[in-house]
Amino acid sequence: MPFPSKNGLKITQIDVNDVRFPTSLGGHGSDALHTDPNYSCAYVTTTTENGKQGFGLTFTCGRGTEIVVLTVRAMKKFILGRNAAEIFADFAGFWRAITNDSQMRWLGPEKGVVHLAVAAILNSLWDLWARLENKPLWRLLVDLTPEELVSTIDFRYITDVITKDEAIKLLKDKLARKDEKVKELSEKGYPAYTTQVGWMGYSDALVKELCNKYLDLGFQHFKVKVGLNLEDDIRRCTAVRKYIGDDKVLMVDANQAWSVGEAIEWMKKLAPLKPMWIEEPTSPDDVLGHAAISKALRPYGIGVATGEMCANRVMFKQFLQSGGMQYCQIDSARIGGVNEILSVYLMAEKLKVKVCPHAGGVGLCEMVQHLQFWDYACVSGTMEGRLIEYVDQQHEHFYDPCVVENARYLAPKLPGYSTKMLPETLKKFSYPKGSEWQHMFKEGIFPRPDEAELVNV
Amino acid sequence: MPFPSKNGLKITQIDVNDVRFPTSLGGHGSDALHTDPNYSCAYVTTTTENGKQGFGLTFTCGRGTEIVVLTVRAMKKFILGRNAAEIFADFAGFWRAITNDSQMRWLGPEKGVVHLAVAAILNSLWDLWARLENKPLWRLLVDLTPEELVSTIDFRYITDVITKDEAIKLLKDKLARKDEKVKELSEKGYPAYTTQVGWMGYSDALVKELCNKYLDLGFQHFKVKVGLNLEDDIRRCTAVRKYIGDDKVLMVDANQAWSVGEAIEWMKKLAPLKPMWIEEPTSPDDVLGHAAISKALRPYGIGVATGEMCANRVMFKQFLQSGGMQYCQIDSARIGGVNEILSVYLMAEKLKVKVCPHAGGVGLCEMVQHLQFWDYACVSGTMEGRLIEYVDQQHEHFYDPCVVENARYLAPKLPGYSTKMLPETLKKFSYPKGSEWQHMFKEGIFPRPDEAELVNV
Repeated sequence: MPFPSKNGLKITQIDVNDVRFPTSLGGHGSDALHTDPNYSCAYVTTTTENGKQGFGLTFTCGRGTEIVVLTVRAMKKFILGRNAAEIFADFAGFWRAITNDSQMRWLGPEKGVVHLAVAAILNSLWDLWARLENKPLWRLLVDLTPEELVSTIDFRYITDVITKDEAIKLLKDKLARKDEKVKELSEKGYPAYTTQVGWMGYSDALVKELCNKYLDLGFQHFKVKVGLNLEDDIRRCTAVRKYIGDDKVLMVDANQAWSVGEAIEWMKKLAPLKPMWIEEPTSPDDVLGHAAISKALRPYGIGVATGEMCANRVMFKQFLQSGGMQYCQIDSARIGGVNEILSVYLMAEKLKVKVCPHAGGVGLCEMVQHLQFWDYACVSGTMEGRLIEYVDQQHEHFYDPCVVENARYLAPKLPGYSTKMLPETLKKFSYPKGSEWQHMFKEGIFPRPDEAELVNV
Repeated sequence: MPFPSKNGLKITQIDVNDVRFPTSLGGHGSDALHTDPNYSCAYVTTTTENGKQGFGLTFTCGRGTEIVVLTVRAMKKFILGRNAAEIFADFAGFWRAITNDSQMRWLGPEKGVVHLAVAAILNSLWDLWARLENKPLWRLLVDLTPEELVSTIDFRYITDVITKDEAIKLLKDKLARKDEKVKELSEKGYPAYTTQVGWMGYSDALVKELCNKYLDLGFQHFKVKVGLNLEDDIRRCTAVRKYIGDDKVLMVDANQAWSVGEAIEWMKKLAPLKPMWIEEPTSPDDVLGHAAISKALRPYGIGVATGEMCANRVMFKQFLQSGGMQYCQIDSARIGGVNEILSVYLMAEKLKVKVCPHAGGVGLCEMVQHLQFWDYACVSGTMEGRLIEYVDQQHEHFYDPCVVENARYLAPKLPGYSTKMLPETLKKFSYPKGSEWQHMFKEGIFPRPDEAELVNV
């Protein structure tokens, strides 16, 4: 497949919206460290001279989304006037340029706000590319030759684990079964797990109701939030284990609540309930800490999962090298777009670590399904021990929401990265001018934002 | 020493300025990855009800400073109306609250833009505290009891290396010689090294001139930028070695230019010139990579130095644990203010790693001297193998600039953290409205900023 022709693809406009949903009102998404998130995103629309558009986003938790919005604006100067086809033909070079501006890299580098902004922009460019090819993103990725795919990745700082040539060879070795895998994905989809049964803020009655609901929907894997209170965790996990039975899989998620020592001790107490993994036991930056926890919990059959707050490919590299993660939870909107995520999948395959993407939030389920489908078709070639997280929230805001049936993500069929939002959503939930927010301010449900938050209107 | 009385200390105002200096015009500060920095800062002024003020800053490289400014504004809501004395009395609790807002922590956590903003705010609060006590910051730190000092630190995620009780004991064990050390510091100051001779953009003639200048000024330690071109590095390091002689110390700094393998091979080539350390050989996030480089270069007598872009205490913890740094280069404006830096000094002491602070930029020399003076008086108690970086730039903008004589930092004497800027500087260099910037825009020396950068005026 040649890269798209340059004709009409000069990028003439980049728009960015601050979109927030008042999810804190229902306790949805609450965990040990995030007690009142308003699931939100910075939403980027990239438009070319001939009117083609790409839509991308990065997920946020409410306050501070305006900072990511301003950062996207500050990065416009690196993109406006460039030709999208030229960007795709040297995508790694473009990635290096936008993540390593000699002045702005001090603000990261490659982490936090600046990298979230890069993710939103890059995601919009990948969406644009897939739309130009008239394919869902996963099919675009599957159809790229190994050389073309690898040309989108900046290998700086990861060559001690995988070089460009090794990556090409790895992909070539998997080519033979690709068509068969694509067919299988198109027919059967990919297994999902649910995080819906065990949010910290949910009542016992709601937990029971949700367990039954998701069992009825065919789910085999259930995740519960832990980490605030051991007795409460034991009570809730025991309840979930009872409702789902011993033949189903339980995972637990501490959302960074513990020190290294606490994580080990706490999980020994939960071990009788047979959780498959403990997710985010401690600081997302603590590679060596995760390695120590992994080692201590191996005798109990508990793996360590992390990644949703892993800053970039260099951090993932070390988690993978060190034995600090047995389940690699890539996030589609934190590290620098599809380009950098592809490099994490390739490192994970080389080091034989299972990738189970983080999802939920806003648009994350929509995005990660494409990545995991590509992984099955072209990289790992297996679903063994692999799952995509599923949370049934905020899908109604997208043109092409993910579809989960019988606890499996069905193959996305429409062109793009499934990241385009409905115009009604933008009208209602743009912050702070959207009609829903104006209504909630008026009713006193949320305070009107102060000057600082209005800067970006 | 009791904490200050609450009287009149309610925080009523927080102002933040975007201050930029056109340093890229002279090639000052250029290195392998930062080819045209305009040394800048987000400058925070905190004012209390009774008119007391504290001044703090975080360093930046130009573009994107407005993002840090907006982030400081977004954090105002966590501080305005709080009483400064109450903050100091539970400084660790305040630190936890401002770094872990349940919505905003997704933007970091504890790294990048949000942590730079925290640094600027916290630095202004420490400056305020020292001014209230009428002491330079290092004397405030020295005069705090071990319990009081440790009460300012959040030990979350670092207790596997040092607990609160261990930190108190470590400080108590050093108390006996404190007065003697303070006297020595007051009389003799603290040794400095110069980074002035080897910026990447400087001509050979300028390098020779500067070597001679700094030799005449009494310097024994000279740092040279490397990493773009091996032949050029050999030529310049050979020249510097010739000018300074074999009895002086050479250090080299790659500013993250290399992969792990490249760093080892490149440094083997420079080893005959006997550099004491290689600074920032690769990604600042690559703990395991730095450990591999350290191990490979040990036989050559070359240590690894890093820290100026180390994101937080959890990353420092791992560099210290893993043998990845032999020289710990804390930065006064990247991690979350004095509170978090104190924890890094304590971990470094426990794990016997030398701290040699990163300085230069804007205000960094002014700040780190206080920290390193405290270290000598209360923590490590030695100057052996320890130095403070010195760059002779941007000091003229401060009320209380650092004074380096005979290659030694002289003890700061005025109250505060030496971070208060002159009003003329703010008038001239506030971006983009300052008179110097308006002049440069008019003359076409720099383009007028676009809408995105004007958002924060």
